[in-house]
Amino acid sequence: MHQNLFTDDKVDFKVLRERATGMRWGALPEDVIPLTAADPDFRPAQEIRDAMIEYIKGGYFPYPTQTGMPGLRESIARGQWERNGVRVNPDFVLPVDSAAAALHAIATSILKPGDEAIIFDPVDLLFGISVRYAGAKEICYPSIRENGGWKLDDLEDYITPKTRMICLCNPHNPMGYVYTEQELRHIAEVANRHNLWIMNDEIWSDIIYSESKFTSINTLGAELNQRTITCYGFSKGFALPGLRAGYIYTMGKEAYDTVTRVANGSSYGVDVITQVAMKAAYDNAFYWVDAFREHLQGIRDTVYERFSKMPLIKATKQQATFVTFPDISATGMTSKEFADYSLNVCRVAIVPGTVEWFGPRGAGHVRFCYATSHAIINEAMDRIERGLKAIADKLA
Amino acid sequence: MHQNLFTDDKVDFKVLRERATGMRWGALPEDVIPLTAADPDFRPAQEIRDAMIEYIKGGYFPYPTQTGMPGLRESIARGQWERNGVRVNPDFVLPVDSAAAALHAIATSILKPGDEAIIFDPVDLLFGISVRYAGAKEICYPSIRENGGWKLDDLEDYITPKTRMICLCNPHNPMGYVYTEQELRHIAEVANRHNLWIMNDEIWSDIIYSESKFTSINTLGAELNQRTITCYGFSKGFALPGLRAGYIYTMGKEAYDTVTRVANGSSYGVDVITQVAMKAAYDNAFYWVDAFREHLQGIRDTVYERFSKMPLIKATKQQATFVTFPDISATGMTSKEFADYSLNVCRVAIVPGTVEWFGPRGAGHVRFCYATSHAIINEAMDRIERGLKAIADKLA
Ligand SMILES: Cc1ncc(COP(=O)(O)O)c(C=O)c1O
Ligand SMILES: Cc1ncc(COP(=O)(O)O)c(C=O)c1O
Repeated sequence: MHQNLFTDDKVDFKVLRERATGMRWGALPEDVIPLTAADPDFRPAQEIRDAMIEYIKGGYFPYPTQTGMPGLRESIARGQWERNGVRVNPDFVLPVDSAAAALHAIATSILKPGDEAIIFDPVDLLFGISVRYAGAKEICYPSIRENGGWKLDDLEDYITPKTRMICLCNPHNPMGYVYTEQELRHIAEVANRHNLWIMNDEIWSDIIYSESKFTSINTLGAELNQRTITCYGFSKGFALPGLRAGYIYTMGKEAYDTVTRVANGSSYGVDVITQVAMKAAYDNAFYWVDAFREHLQGIRDTVYERFSKMPLIKATKQQATFVTFPDISATGMTSKEFADYSLNVCRVAIVPGTVEWFGPRGAGHVRFCYATSHAIINEAMDRIERGLKAIADKLA
Repeated sequence: MHQNLFTDDKVDFKVLRERATGMRWGALPEDVIPLTAADPDFRPAQEIRDAMIEYIKGGYFPYPTQTGMPGLRESIARGQWERNGVRVNPDFVLPVDSAAAALHAIATSILKPGDEAIIFDPVDLLFGISVRYAGAKEICYPSIRENGGWKLDDLEDYITPKTRMICLCNPHNPMGYVYTEQELRHIAEVANRHNLWIMNDEIWSDIIYSESKFTSINTLGAELNQRTITCYGFSKGFALPGLRAGYIYTMGKEAYDTVTRVANGSSYGVDVITQVAMKAAYDNAFYWVDAFREHLQGIRDTVYERFSKMPLIKATKQQATFVTFPDISATGMTSKEFADYSLNVCRVAIVPGTVEWFGPRGAGHVRFCYATSHAIINEAMDRIERGLKAIADKLA
């Protein structure tokens, strides 16, 4: 169903080259395949585009309010209930202009200079950026996946009297991991025992492969989550990064008031067209998300199978997200050297696992975004395979 | 020319009641005329709406970049040159999501807790909000207009060793004043003498009446403005508040780097549709701004003449902006009491000159926004006139 939305011919290079200027098609030589920014090569749901056009035709763009257009919070709360089984009070939902802005607001509202925040390492750069922006110190908790699980048993050892927050990325970028209920309970209990806040980023919660299940920490109930602040963004599952669309929600009023004091510093709320898109997405476009995820599952399988047959690279089978973070240390190259080689020789642009991008434990890894078509991913895999074989030949 | 865009029938109550939910048509009883938020009752230029629709039809919304879509900064720099005679280097232009967000970013990038910033009192609330958000202290400089000029001679007396910034609102909301070149030079020289930054808000610079002339402090040259950070927004002249569209520019690299470290904390820049609107506005819609201003000049005249004939109210003839801030202290009411009376009895919603809205020296004043049609403004003036006469009768 709806898989015709994601056939090879649906990738429109002409428009992408004009518009995708952030490390992607529009920023790179014509013959390079950009598997860099986690930004889909497909157009988002028609319903969302139609709703925006309809709104613009109405012609007026008055000041929004902080809490958004009528019905938006309710649509979001309903979506959280129907998709994730979380009972969110619409009064504790705040539309914001992207998950990135949300992380920023959460960090700034909780952390003061001198505070510490625990970040699972490796993870997307935005966690560290937000914590440092708030003047606090990031404490990297080494959480590389072991035996199919997440290392969590010694989490408490990383807590000091200065610790104020644990930063959770669930599902996890770039590891493609979903936390189990047991793990989430452990994290919540540790946080509660030490009076810590939880910054809970669920931007990837729509892209879960069929053999896995997403659990939100908030399903553990309001009691354990009084100090959890959750954010979501429309850039991934709904393919709308350019709209800067997201929201924050909390399970209680104190947390909501705390983050609201800082979020939307601009004091009038989020762009109305972005709001229209968010509402249309939640009201009418989850079918598209599910079709997209189904398409991505095929790509995920291809990427995993193909990497499994290549020399010098070790990939995990992602449970979630549309990025993968294979270990390339057997090439003898640093992640930066390999990413340069991939770009310059293989003509596939990827993100190096350098400390700026993913933290210290990104070393030896590179990140591929695979939110594209079968044709493009196969071509990219061919190129990487040739490149790896050439390195293997040299090493032999 | 283009005056047919602003005839009485162009105010579309149906759409406004649905959308203008921020203290305006959609938030008030049907029989109330909202002259509250500085938000026009007219649709913005067709060219801007068309450009957004065209973009949405292209269908992709990839991640933007911090510095905006190709050509946007150049369009802005050209607009500044052609409209205001300021030579802006496109490299020192940063698109941001509203002037409010810009003020916030400027304050946060310059001020530390304990610092002081001078704010001309009365002025729009966003200055104080931004300064306090940055943890600094606002020092109110009393600048009520005297003899058609602005009081500035004792500005230096308000500077202490803690002062870091002077906040300038030019043209001035709510006084409707444009600073003269001489006054701006004085401010710039004082700032330079004391190594102060200038936060320069020019959001109102498009709405200047024909007998007045707008001068940007930046026309005094880059040398005097090394520490000036200017912002602009599309909410007023272009009637686009809902898009949260604005930009920051500086005359030098140091100032640009300083504010950029903080602005767009969300790290991917501004919503792409908002960017498209900003570019279309600057490339194709200044004709609309000029027609709008011409329309507003007629309204300004009406408002001024009608207030001049009413008892107990003293209005100035605005040089700029589409707000007016008459003195109603002769009614014996506080500004809050008068605003309540205006709403409840006259059925005209206005903004009280309370300390939260405009600073301590807003007392005894109320603000009317008059970005509407002749029919609506005349009806509102009739209602206010009846209300004032009733108060005068009681006082007599
Ligand atoms: C974990 C995570 N959080 C936040 C973001 C940023 O999302 P947004 O586009 O809503 O700012 C990303 C983008 O890659 C991400 O992977
Ligand atoms: C002086 C001034 N600055 C900033 C703003 C806010 O502008 P924006 O809508 O771009 O946030 C206003 C709005 O009334 C204003 O009067």
